Amino acid sequence: MAADRQSPPSVYHTVPLPDSQLDFCGQPYSVSVLKVGYSLPQTDGTFRADGTISLITGPKVVLVDTGGPWDRDLLLLTLSRRGLSLGSVDWVVGTHGHSDHIGNINLFPAAALIVGYDVSQGDTYRSNGLARGHPFSLDEHVTVIPTPGHSGQDVSVQVKGTSAGTVLVSGDLFECCSDENTWRDLSMNVAVQEVSRQEALRTSDVIIPGHGLPFKVVSSCTFTELEKPLT
Amino acid sequence: MAADRQSPPSVYHTVPLPDSQLDFCGQPYSVSVLKVGYSLPQTDGTFRADGTISLITGPKVVLVDTGGPWDRDLLLLTLSRRGLSLGSVDWVVGTHGHSDHIGNINLFPAAALIVGYDVSQGDTYRSNGLARGHPFSLDEHVTVIPTPGHSGQDVSVQVKGTSAGTVLVSGDLFECCSDENTWRDLSMNVAVQEVSRQEALRTSDVIIPGHGLPFKVVSSCTFTELEKPLT
Repeated sequence: MAADRQSPPSVYHTVPLPDSQLDFCGQPYSVSVLKVGYSLPQTDGTFRADGTISLITGPKVVLVDTGGPWDRDLLLLTLSRRGLSLGSVDWVVGTHGHSDHIGNINLFPAAALIVGYDVSQGDTYRSNGLARGHPFSLDEHVTVIPTPGHSGQDVSVQVKGTSAGTVLVSGDLFECCSDENTWRDLSMNVAVQEVSRQEALRTSDVIIPGHGLPFKVVSSCTFTELEKPLT
Repeated sequence: MAADRQSPPSVYHTVPLPDSQLDFCGQPYSVSVLKVGYSLPQTDGTFRADGTISLITGPKVVLVDTGGPWDRDLLLLTLSRRGLSLGSVDWVVGTHGHSDHIGNINLFPAAALIVGYDVSQGDTYRSNGLARGHPFSLDEHVTVIPTPGHSGQDVSVQVKGTSAGTVLVSGDLFECCSDENTWRDLSMNVAVQEVSRQEALRTSDVIIPGHGLPFKVVSSCTFTELEKPLT
């Protein structure tokens, strides 16, 4: 399973994974979806929405997105069931500053925090290159990547070396597996987001989107691999 | 004191108010600064920053910005000292999705929530016109106004009818009273923010900025009013 393809084909396909496949084990890092986000139009013109919450465990513990404010108790319970204290979370990343993604960042006062392009620890903000398009590496396996377009200041978290290959926790860069008819309506800059999406597809084997189940990325030349189970 | 000037002069002046002037009483709404934000460059290249937290009280209770995650206990204590329960806050407005402004939105699960251009109650998101430049009125006195530029999806809250005239809680549309040399470096779109700033100056008597003390706005033709105390 080869991400960062050297000779990219022009077309990538996104393929749903089974609903039950929410964990991507690896060494040294594993990635788990704690809550699958959703976006559901209602008959009265409103829509119900929540952002996907993901957890990266290994030498460091990284929580990617914290859901909406209403997810507070769910988040506490889910982490507790995994044997994790709030203090054991080293990094909290808010992929962008929308309320359904950054609702619970105050549960982790000891963690280093990234929201969009801002990197902070307590009220101390560190200079970084995210706004200039530079990745911000937490270590050699986990990297925060600027992927602008949806809100203007968006990041994704790339985890290399899982058994499923390179996993990208993308926030709302992707809404869900089949979002071709929806993502543009939610984008602040469609052209910029399209570039971010194509780069994400080129360099990822699995993408965990902001409002849906994880999906697999295959290129046209490997499309026959579709039937292969993830190992 | 006349906001929304019909024949705007070309120049507005921003004038500091005394450090102690953090309350702007009025009928039916009063505005209070609960915590004055700051932005302080450090010798090691980092900077310490926090967003201003403001409270609007009257027929509805509106909290504008919640500070960084580290402000949780301060916010609880400050509201308690004013005799306000968390459940008595009707609206929470995050002027934009930066971590030093939206750190504690989960303290108010019963409140309606606005963060940037998103209006929600729990996980139900309401259609609104903020992204298309339309104001969102909470009632005839309090209006959420799109003021883009700083982060791309920014709002300010305008309160009419205080004893100091029209008060604008501006988030980072303005950093502080004298920010001419700093705001552009923090702006995602300088040209758009400049338009938002000029409109804010034209229609406000007092501005509560995102990282500093409230200040007064006077036009060139009323500059002699500078010495007048606020009533």
